[in-house]
Order: sequence, then structure tokens, then C-alpha cells
Amino acid sequence: MTCVHTGFVVWLTGLPASGKTTTAKALQKKLYSIGLKSEILDGDQVRKAISPELGFSKGDRELHAKRVAYISHLLSRNGIIVIVSLISPLRSFRDYAREIIGNFVEVWVKCSIEECNKRDPKGLYKNAFQGKISNLTGIQDPYEPPFKAEVVIDTEKQSPNECTERIMNCLNKLKYI
Amino acid sequence: MTCVHTGFVVWLTGLPASGKTTTAKALQKKLYSIGLKSEILDGDQVRKAISPELGFSKGDRELHAKRVAYISHLLSRNGIIVIVSLISPLRSFRDYAREIIGNFVEVWVKCSIEECNKRDPKGLYKNAFQGKISNLTGIQDPYEPPFKAEVVIDTEKQSPNECTERIMNCLNKLKYI
Repeated sequence: MTCVHTGFVVWLTGLPASGKTTTAKALQKKLYSIGLKSEILDGDQVRKAISPELGFSKGDRELHAKRVAYISHLLSRNGIIVIVSLISPLRSFRDYAREIIGNFVEVWVKCSIEECNKRDPKGLYKNAFQGKISNLTGIQDPYEPPFKAEVVIDTEKQSPNECTERIMNCLNKLKYI
Repeated sequence: MTCVHTGFVVWLTGLPASGKTTTAKALQKKLYSIGLKSEILDGDQVRKAISPELGFSKGDRELHAKRVAYISHLLSRNGIIVIVSLISPLRSFRDYAREIIGNFVEVWVKCSIEECNKRDPKGLYKNAFQGKISNLTGIQDPYEPPFKAEVVIDTEKQSPNECTERIMNCLNKLKYI
């Protein structure tokens, strides 16, 4: 038997290579250090598991984001803390998630396109500039910055630790933890 | 804060109209009466939420069953009791679910095709016999009865209460509850 907290979803949105995965892992570690288990839903991993047939058109991205939102909803309504790491480029995708989930904390993982391009751990920007991929968010496809994010973190100026602290402070303020 | 049990998945498989949904609801009620919350994943409902693009070909059914298995896995590994109600007609679908989930209890909801046809709450059999649908499990598409179900219930001969008791006894024996 284990005791769990009221469920909620921390939804990390941002450009490719903005630092979503790093932030998700750091946040999970921090939550664990105060006795709270969480589940990370990483967009790429969930895609492999349940959306292998989808591409990166607007419609496919939307369908995938809806699936991630639905799964997050099921987990969080059962008392699980969920950390979603998903580009989720359009406001409408995130607003949909906010609506069906309820206990929703939107975090804008902010980073300039120049810095993302410099980091480029998966070689996506390189491939986009060489024309090998045609739908990279931020380059060919739009990214709509959040209007109503509960937290904005700037991974260019703040360390992972500082970013995590900001999110934890917000979760505290909202009485989720 | 609520306390939850070790997660596991009760996977109800059987023909359309065999009594899966009725059994799922009765089991959920019974578990609740001993202080255990559970989440029902009903095949039709999950399909509407995350697989609206899928039909009922073998490949589409498989993809859908895999999605349900993945979601069940995420929930159960976080301590949630999951009751799946899904035709899941082929052994390979259920074996896949068993493999990725681990804490897996397969329940064969057994009922003769004649009795299912008589019940037919959704008019599926009627439509199949009139040629309006062409892929009803048990009529046009195959149903493979389980070889290794942990429990077999017979909804023609046993009341919902008796069926639930059988499942509860099995969960007890396997030390899930």
C-alpha cells in the first residue's frame, strides 16, 4: 500500500530542444525528494507506444496531443501526478487539455530559437535547415507561445534547478503540494 | 490524500453482449464496498476518446487493443486497479496485454452466441444478420476463447453477483486484494 496525493498535471510546452525533457526529469526528482511519485509522459515515447501511425501534420499533432491529454486525465483523476513533456505547439491543443484535465498547470519552457538550434541534441534543426524534414515546430511549423501559462521558465537564463524551483513554488501556491 | 492498493488489471474478454460491461460495473461496486477504488476502461468509450479514426479490421482492432493495454499499464503501475471491458477477440491481443502489464487477470466472459444474439442490446447481431455490418465478432469475425484465463464466468448460468464473487475469489487467491 502506498499513499498518493491529489492528482494534477504539469504540462510542459515549448520548442524542440527547449529543455522540456530535462525539466521533466529534474521536476520528477524534486517531487520524489519530498515523497511524491510522478509519471512522466514524454511526447516522443507515448507516440511510439500508441500513435506510431501518426505524422506531424496539424491534424496528426492534434490527435496525438488529445491522446496524451486523455491519458493524463485518466491518471490524474486517479490521484497520480503527471508531468507531460510535449511540444503541443498550438494554444487550442493546450486549452483542450486544460479543459478535460481540470487540475492543469501549464508551463512554458521558453528558449530562443537560436539557442534551441545551437543545442539541437536530436539533429532536428540541422535536418530542417538542410530540407530533410519539413515540419519542424519553430522553423517551418508555427509555435504559439502560451497566453495563460501558470509558470514561465527561461532555460537560457535559468538553471534546471532554478526552473524546477519556480514550478515547485507555483505548485505550492496553487496548493497542489 | 487517499490510500491505494497495488495496481492490477482485470481484463474482461468476450463476445459482444456477453456481459462484459455489466460484470465490470458489478465488480467495481464490489471492490468499492471493501474500500478499493477502480477505473473502468470500456472499449467503446476509450475508442471514442482516442481511436475515433479506427475501424474494425483486424489491424485496427489490434491497434486499439494495444492502446488500451498501454493505458492500463500506465494506470496499474501507478497503483490503480483497472477493469478493462474489451472484446479483444484474438489471443495474441490479450497475450500482448498480459506481457506489458504484468499484474494481469484475464477473465473470459463466456456466453453462447445464441444468448448474445437474444440479448443484443445494441442491435449489433440484428445488423450483422441483415448484412448492415460485416465484421461482428462471433458472426463474421473470429473470437478465440482464452486458453489461460485466470477466471471463466458463464453469464448464461451465473448471476452478475455470482460472476463477481468468482472474480473476487481469484483476486484473493492471487493476493491482489
